[in-house]
Amino acid sequence: MKRNEEDVYYGDYLQLDKLLDAQHPVSGTAGRAAAHDEMLFVVVHQVYELWFKQILHELRSVVCLMARERIEERSLGTINARCARIRKIQKLLVDQIDVMETMTPLDFMDFRDYLVPASGFQSVQFKEIEILLGLKGEYRIDFDKACFYSRLTEGHREYLQGMESGPSLFELLDRWLGRMPFLDYEQYAFWDEYRGAVDAMLARDRGIITGNTGMTGGEREAELAELEKTRERFDTLLDEGRYEAARGRGEVRLSHRAMLAAVFIHLYRDEPILHGPFGLLMNALEIDELLTTWRARHAIMVQRMIGHKIGTGGSSGHGYLMRTTENNRVFLDLYNLPTFLIRRSDLPALPDEVKRGLGFYFGGGEGDV
Amino acid sequence: MKRNEEDVYYGDYLQLDKLLDAQHPVSGTAGRAAAHDEMLFVVVHQVYELWFKQILHELRSVVCLMARERIEERSLGTINARCARIRKIQKLLVDQIDVMETMTPLDFMDFRDYLVPASGFQSVQFKEIEILLGLKGEYRIDFDKACFYSRLTEGHREYLQGMESGPSLFELLDRWLGRMPFLDYEQYAFWDEYRGAVDAMLARDRGIITGNTGMTGGEREAELAELEKTRERFDTLLDEGRYEAARGRGEVRLSHRAMLAAVFIHLYRDEPILHGPFGLLMNALEIDELLTTWRARHAIMVQRMIGHKIGTGGSSGHGYLMRTTENNRVFLDLYNLPTFLIRRSDLPALPDEVKRGLGFYFGGGEGDV
Amino acid sequence: MKRNEEDVYYGDYLQLDKLLDAQHPVSGTAGRAAAHDEMLFVVVHQVYELWFKQILHELRSVVCLMARERIEERSLGTINARCARIRKIQKLLVDQIDVMETMTPLDFMDFRDYLVPASGFQSVQFKEIEILLGLKGEYRIDFDKACFYSRLTEGHREYLQGMESGPSLFELLDRWLGRMPFLDYEQYAFWDEYRGAVDAMLARDRGIITGNTGMTGGEREAELAELEKTRERFDTLLDEGRYEAARGRGEVRLSHRAMLAAVFIHLYRDEPILHGPFGLLMNALEIDELLTTWRARHAIMVQRMIGHKIGTGGSSGHGYLMRTTENNRVFLDLYNLPTFLIRRSDLPALPDEVKRGLGFYFGGGEGDV
Amino acid sequence: MKRNEEDVYYGDYLQLDKLLDAQHPVSGTAGRAAAHDEMLFVVVHQVYELWFKQILHELRSVVCLMARERIEERSLGTINARCARIRKIQKLLVDQIDVMETMTPLDFMDFRDYLVPASGFQSVQFKEIEILLGLKGEYRIDFDKACFYSRLTEGHREYLQGMESGPSLFELLDRWLGRMPFLDYEQYAFWDEYRGAVDAMLARDRGIITGNTGMTGGEREAELAELEKTRERFDTLLDEGRYEAARGRGEVRLSHRAMLAAVFIHLYRDEPILHGPFGLLMNALEIDELLTTWRARHAIMVQRMIGHKIGTGGSSGHGYLMRTTENNRVFLDLYNLPTFLIRRSDLPALPDEVKRGLGFYFGGGEGDV
Repeated sequence: MKRNEEDVYYGDYLQLDKLLDAQHPVSGTAGRAAAHDEMLFVVVHQVYELWFKQILHELRSVVCLMARERIEERSLGTINARCARIRKIQKLLVDQIDVMETMTPLDFMDFRDYLVPASGFQSVQFKEIEILLGLKGEYRIDFDKACFYSRLTEGHREYLQGMESGPSLFELLDRWLGRMPFLDYEQYAFWDEYRGAVDAMLARDRGIITGNTGMTGGEREAELAELEKTRERFDTLLDEGRYEAARGRGEVRLSHRAMLAAVFIHLYRDEPILHGPFGLLMNALEIDELLTTWRARHAIMVQRMIGHKIGTGGSSGHGYLMRTTENNRVFLDLYNLPTFLIRRSDLPALPDEVKRGLGFYFGGGEGDV
Repeated sequence: MKRNEEDVYYGDYLQLDKLLDAQHPVSGTAGRAAAHDEMLFVVVHQVYELWFKQILHELRSVVCLMARERIEERSLGTINARCARIRKIQKLLVDQIDVMETMTPLDFMDFRDYLVPASGFQSVQFKEIEILLGLKGEYRIDFDKACFYSRLTEGHREYLQGMESGPSLFELLDRWLGRMPFLDYEQYAFWDEYRGAVDAMLARDRGIITGNTGMTGGEREAELAELEKTRERFDTLLDEGRYEAARGRGEVRLSHRAMLAAVFIHLYRDEPILHGPFGLLMNALEIDELLTTWRARHAIMVQRMIGHKIGTGGSSGHGYLMRTTENNRVFLDLYNLPTFLIRRSDLPALPDEVKRGLGFYFGGGEGDV
Repeated sequence: MKRNEEDVYYGDYLQLDKLLDAQHPVSGTAGRAAAHDEMLFVVVHQVYELWFKQILHELRSVVCLMARERIEERSLGTINARCARIRKIQKLLVDQIDVMETMTPLDFMDFRDYLVPASGFQSVQFKEIEILLGLKGEYRIDFDKACFYSRLTEGHREYLQGMESGPSLFELLDRWLGRMPFLDYEQYAFWDEYRGAVDAMLARDRGIITGNTGMTGGEREAELAELEKTRERFDTLLDEGRYEAARGRGEVRLSHRAMLAAVFIHLYRDEPILHGPFGLLMNALEIDELLTTWRARHAIMVQRMIGHKIGTGGSSGHGYLMRTTENNRVFLDLYNLPTFLIRRSDLPALPDEVKRGLGFYFGGGEGDV
Repeated sequence: MKRNEEDVYYGDYLQLDKLLDAQHPVSGTAGRAAAHDEMLFVVVHQVYELWFKQILHELRSVVCLMARERIEERSLGTINARCARIRKIQKLLVDQIDVMETMTPLDFMDFRDYLVPASGFQSVQFKEIEILLGLKGEYRIDFDKACFYSRLTEGHREYLQGMESGPSLFELLDRWLGRMPFLDYEQYAFWDEYRGAVDAMLARDRGIITGNTGMTGGEREAELAELEKTRERFDTLLDEGRYEAARGRGEVRLSHRAMLAAVFIHLYRDEPILHGPFGLLMNALEIDELLTTWRARHAIMVQRMIGHKIGTGGSSGHGYLMRTTENNRVFLDLYNLPTFLIRRSDLPALPDEVKRGLGFYFGGGEGDV
């Protein structure tokens, strides 16, 4: 091939000279025996970092689109598409653990000691993703509160700390939900209707329990106690004061109005104008779920790789990692949201004018295409 | 557990007595040696059939929603969600081949002869899926045209033939696209604008080629010839007579107006009212793509399982299967659609009144939420 | 098609009349509104049960082959192949959760109440798998100790309780490892050599720590304390009395001799005769890991589906499920085994006669093919 | 963190400064509009190249181990483990297409023209993998024969051409199979026994066909013709002259003796000494299958991305890619091998002394562990 100066060549475009010259195992140097599997270790982590870069590229653009005073409807399609892309990448991150697990503990030991005290805990990009999603200081598990920044260079630490004051996906979602306009529509006050539906539902359930002759007294009491707990949960949702108290105790994280809007979106997601918002709630949940799945798989993999040994970076290994799985959740409120759903058949119908307001009016108001 | 009469029990609910008593390998009966792996063969196929049942459940509901005179906007969310579910199931169908491949050819031979002339070709549900998607008589590959019904019982044949006259996803999509109202909007005739943009683009490309002094004469001619082909493709799209002629030759399958609408949706998919329609086009494409991927994986698996032998049902095995992969495509037009896209920067801007018509007007026309 | 009496027909062979007539959603009956998504719920669980049947088919055959007085070398290939198949199926079981998650909490509520008190907790086949793997009474988490049998019919309970006294994969693996003949080979006593190597390694590490002038006194003390813990772990492994005491406390589950054999296999897995045994250890570990991964994914899915509500079967839902993830592990010892590995470069060389004993002697002893 | 000079830091170890500074989209430069999705395009391809580097690391080590005069039995475990790792990586390469497909054709067009004439066809590492597997000159499809080297720089072309004369996995496998010692064992000539078994099987099948009164004359003739073809295939396998003629016609690629050994390994894979060799045959097949699956998925993805347009590198796009899928197969002989298998029940029993020769003799010849 005769190349013109300006012709783009695959290897130049991808900077393969740099990219493929960045794998330098430390075994095999300085008199150490070469360990075949260290290359895998390097490449797997580098692939992670490339995907992290891509996730950050998407996440930053999402945060940027959501940080506007108002999120344009047309942007919502873009935001959802980029979140969907993040999820596809996260799926690969999870599956990639299968590749790492082709390395046996014995093979790992051939070079593990050379890496001390380096640790995946020092991945700046991973921490950036966590912060950008909304896993900021107060929301981290205790170990991370103490140690999130402890093993980084000063430059990295300052860079990340600077991000803590910037907007995160969690905060922007909270703000966007908080200004959602559908909850009070002219004379229509959705939550009054909703409270009525909940009360009717609970009364009906109580009737079923007390009328059930097949139960022992103890069983009946247990069921009634459970019903009472359910009522309390609804009371907490519908009473701003109680809700804020629960928020103060760390039981919920979303603001009151945002939580109500999220419940509304779930309940009326079939309305055209809510397709996009519902998609965004699901995307936030699933990004969190995939991160959690990755944490769980990673924790198990570490255990099988090092057993009871401590991590190269000094963490307690598997035990620490499992705690992050259960507790380092950004959108836990969205997991718990089903607590506040009621059955479609119990759902108050929307007034016609609200319904029209949630549809399209192209071509003269037929409301369909 | 003391069970009340009306208590639902897991095993009863799922009819496990029937379900788990439906595996009856023929090896190990009538004096034949038992073949351990026949159970896998039975179970894998049964799981396929269960998933097919679920796919049909979704596909029929989608067809039903789309068969209405007008598709409500609110239904579009449901249709897209059910299509997405079909895709998730299809993903499993592909991955499931990995399980089948744990059976070696030698293990398969332990019971293969007992199955003659049964064949996956006799799966009525699979054929139902094909017909419901739109793979009807004239669109099948030649072998299938001749043999699609040949190995079925009369009852099954009649049942399937009865479906050929009913609506398929392809036909309903074609009809829905054909009545899409956005293409001519009051005084605005999109396609005149589009033709202008295409002409400008082609003229610019011609200028670049003729002005490129780095090319030999032969190279220039080749590029110009390629450009001419591109122009012809656009001419075919934009001229109904030429398009219908191409359709008569089997080069395209969608009606002219439907194809134009599909191109429009791709080009302006960011407009809120087109989010749902764009999603539906992508769903149709991806359902087809996953079916195609399954066919390819399946064809390769069959080859590694039986080599040059003919299939139990008498087909020529791998060769036949690979032809279905390349040619039994329902939504091939959607794959080829990028041929007609032009760059966003070359795209004619929509007039404001059209743009407004494609957005939401909740809360007084701000166009965002 | 003219069918002969004896011709096998696809649908008959798979008993599709039974299989495809076993989906009977309870919504849509007895005056209840039909819920579209209940079919998915039924089919997903039925597919699980079909795969469970296949896993049990493989697991029982593995248990049967391993229950012999001696496991033939030729059987080891079969055992490993069947374990590998189980793993492939387990992979699907995990991925299948993606399909279930296409159902939203609101869709689930349309029929959830009709199912009470049925629960996946009543899957007899799942409990069979757990017991056959080795998750018997004393090894279950506390909740399961109390409730494992509580919600079953009497017939199912008796059936499962009968299995508790039969052999499980864990016990057979333990027994097989316990009689592994390589550990003492004529005059060669592996563990004396091993203890020497461990002592040398620990002495060297102590030297590095005490000689490191870059550490503060506190850091040095911490490192020495950690080293001391490592020494204690090795002492526990190598001293039968201490090991049995740890076993009494539930810290390890494998017998002492079995654990030593497992460590030996890991260390010398490159020797030809150990390829099969090493494969079996990895299979046991990965079957456990995939079950654990499924539990974690399932727990998260349940949380997003029901939030804080209690399970249909009365369990506390997500919290309970996460505890089974971390604690219901059969082969936890194999995860922790890396604790006892030493680096290849520190490994005592096997005497030639042992090495020969671990190879093939085909064709006159060249030891290779 | 106070770092010592010699402390390893995560980002330094992985050379993240280089790695994360190697993404330079060309859109957004030189007055061009920035295209958000170009970053994805760059990162996806870079991840491919990192994985290719790892595959080459494994493949070269496998080729090196197999290039020895004799392959040590202990090496076989290593070879199989590294092949298994390659397969896990290949699985990711296939799944990764899902990520690329989140980019729509319209998004691709925002920067596609800037890349001309770069093309994935210029990936040197991918071509290295193809050559190392054994896809050398004469075995390529016609288009590749002409163009394999056409779009590379001279340096890259020379580098790759230099590899064509080196050993490939195919050739080494062929050589290794060719020297397999089990086929003639002292007085035992396996192939005489095998031919007898085949003849008996064919005679029995002929008897069944001629004795079947339910067939028409035409059906019987067709079945007998098919049987005759089967006999011819076996004749070709068992007669070196005919086999070599078929090889000359390109119908088979393995040498005669290698093919016989491969059939033998399949038939007697349960014997301990054949576990490793059987694993290697399966690994070779599956690496080929995964490459083929990737090609098929990639071809479909390209079609949906560019439709009828030609590739940036000038190839005819989808059509070309589908041809490579069907025809650029290295281990096609292993797919077709089942043609030569006979049922276990028809298999001649191995004489005791051969059987012993295929087992382990640890601990005095019990043949099991």
